[in-house]
Amino acid sequence: MIRLTTSVLSQQGIQAQLQTKWEQGRFLCVGLDSDYARLPSAVRAGRSRADALILFNRQIVEATCASVVAYKPNVAFYEAQGVEGLQALAATVDFIKRTVPDVAVILDGKRGDIGSTNAGYASALFDIIGADWITVHPYLGREAMTAFLDRADRGVFVLVKTSNPGAGEFQDLPVGADERPLYQVVAQQVSTSWNYNNNCGVVVGAPYPEALRQVRAIVGELPILVPGVGVQGGEMGPTVRAGRGRHGGGLVINSSRDVIFASSGPDYPNAAATVAAKLNAEVGRWMG
Amino acid sequence: MIRLTTSVLSQQGIQAQLQTKWEQGRFLCVGLDSDYARLPSAVRAGRSRADALILFNRQIVEATCASVVAYKPNVAFYEAQGVEGLQALAATVDFIKRTVPDVAVILDGKRGDIGSTNAGYASALFDIIGADWITVHPYLGREAMTAFLDRADRGVFVLVKTSNPGAGEFQDLPVGADERPLYQVVAQQVSTSWNYNNNCGVVVGAPYPEALRQVRAIVGELPILVPGVGVQGGEMGPTVRAGRGRHGGGLVINSSRDVIFASSGPDYPNAAATVAAKLNAEVGRWMG
Repeated sequence: MIRLTTSVLSQQGIQAQLQTKWEQGRFLCVGLDSDYARLPSAVRAGRSRADALILFNRQIVEATCASVVAYKPNVAFYEAQGVEGLQALAATVDFIKRTVPDVAVILDGKRGDIGSTNAGYASALFDIIGADWITVHPYLGREAMTAFLDRADRGVFVLVKTSNPGAGEFQDLPVGADERPLYQVVAQQVSTSWNYNNNCGVVVGAPYPEALRQVRAIVGELPILVPGVGVQGGEMGPTVRAGRGRHGGGLVINSSRDVIFASSGPDYPNAAATVAAKLNAEVGRWMG
Repeated sequence: MIRLTTSVLSQQGIQAQLQTKWEQGRFLCVGLDSDYARLPSAVRAGRSRADALILFNRQIVEATCASVVAYKPNVAFYEAQGVEGLQALAATVDFIKRTVPDVAVILDGKRGDIGSTNAGYASALFDIIGADWITVHPYLGREAMTAFLDRADRGVFVLVKTSNPGAGEFQDLPVGADERPLYQVVAQQVSTSWNYNNNCGVVVGAPYPEALRQVRAIVGELPILVPGVGVQGGEMGPTVRAGRGRHGGGLVINSSRDVIFASSGPDYPNAAATVAAKLNAEVGRWMG
């Protein structure tokens, strides 16, 4: 576990919420990708879809909250269950904020529309559902994102280099005279002109540790959300060494299915707790 | 009004749904950006939010359906109203499909996640809500979008050059040795490797007629969805001349607020009908 003194704290505003957890040795983000069809049968039996999702998420949160800096529900898994899914998502976020208010909630919706329309999403994701952070696409540019970026009390993780195998189709295209990959240009813009409220972070997938190293060099001490450890092929050691901040911390390492579906039996909360503690300790070792 | 003979039909699958309407001289897409706060007070009074949204949309659809190729609800305006908004969205799409089943429903959610997660969105948007087309971000690449692209019975409009003032921040970046703007590279990829089920279209904003001309040259006869006429500053003549297909048609010209909020009084359905008919006729004149 690392210990940072207050003198090296560089995070401000919503970013400081993460910093506090990093100082406590918490780096893991549990992705609440709670696909209804994959919930343990004991959870589904005799319950509505909404109630099953809520119960499952509550038990996962209670079991893992000592190991995490954040929870990240992916909106798609809830939308796929219609109105009941949305009710479950709102109830889950509400439960997290009441139970562990110092743990960040990152709503992974990968949104991004034009200005006036994003006001609708900001209202839905920040105010109705109650997320601390959201994820957004960079393609429309900063000007379109002001409805999110102007919210100094909330944070915005911008997709820079995603974890999927085909991420490079556009993200790796060489741009301009110096032929920098597009994702590095996006990282540069986000860490400078987008970050006027100190409420930006970037997303870089674990399967690309060299990209993570490049992005860390560009964005300074900005938080980096890292999906794709484990199932998607990212290895912990290279990931953490490439992406950690100058004083340790700086990373929100996401694991979803490896934690929440660690067991399909009635012992799933204990199984999730064990995997979460192990993963977080592993990040901590590489941080040192 | 243009008349296309069947011999020049180049659209297949879901694209043919649009072709049929173009042959009937229908080019207008009415954007159902039904911001609850802007609904006429007579619609809101004494009704739940869901009921007010449903009534408003039904009356707009009944008033405008003789002039349109498609309706395009933007999901953000419904999500902003929580569960009631989502209920209203589903009821609106259901009403359109029952009343005018040959008119396309384009759900404008600008989605885009990694592969397995997009399956959740495909289920939510295509199956639960019942859209014919959705809009997606290109940033993650084709590989991530297969959950959408594999659905040969549904269509995908990919953002290429968006209508917002700051669209160029990344979309205009010069790529590679020939320094083509990024948006043109995206258009090229979508019209070739993404379009394996003949179910792709692209989005190009009306404020950029030169970009529209370039994209039409790249994508051949693919449908182009064009937002931003009117309120956002795009002029009809240059837009249609730059973007129309080789035999006419090829364009889905979106107008939202100019149509649906044409009047804030009780005459709003008639006002919407008048504006919609006028706009569609104007497109038709420039098509000729």
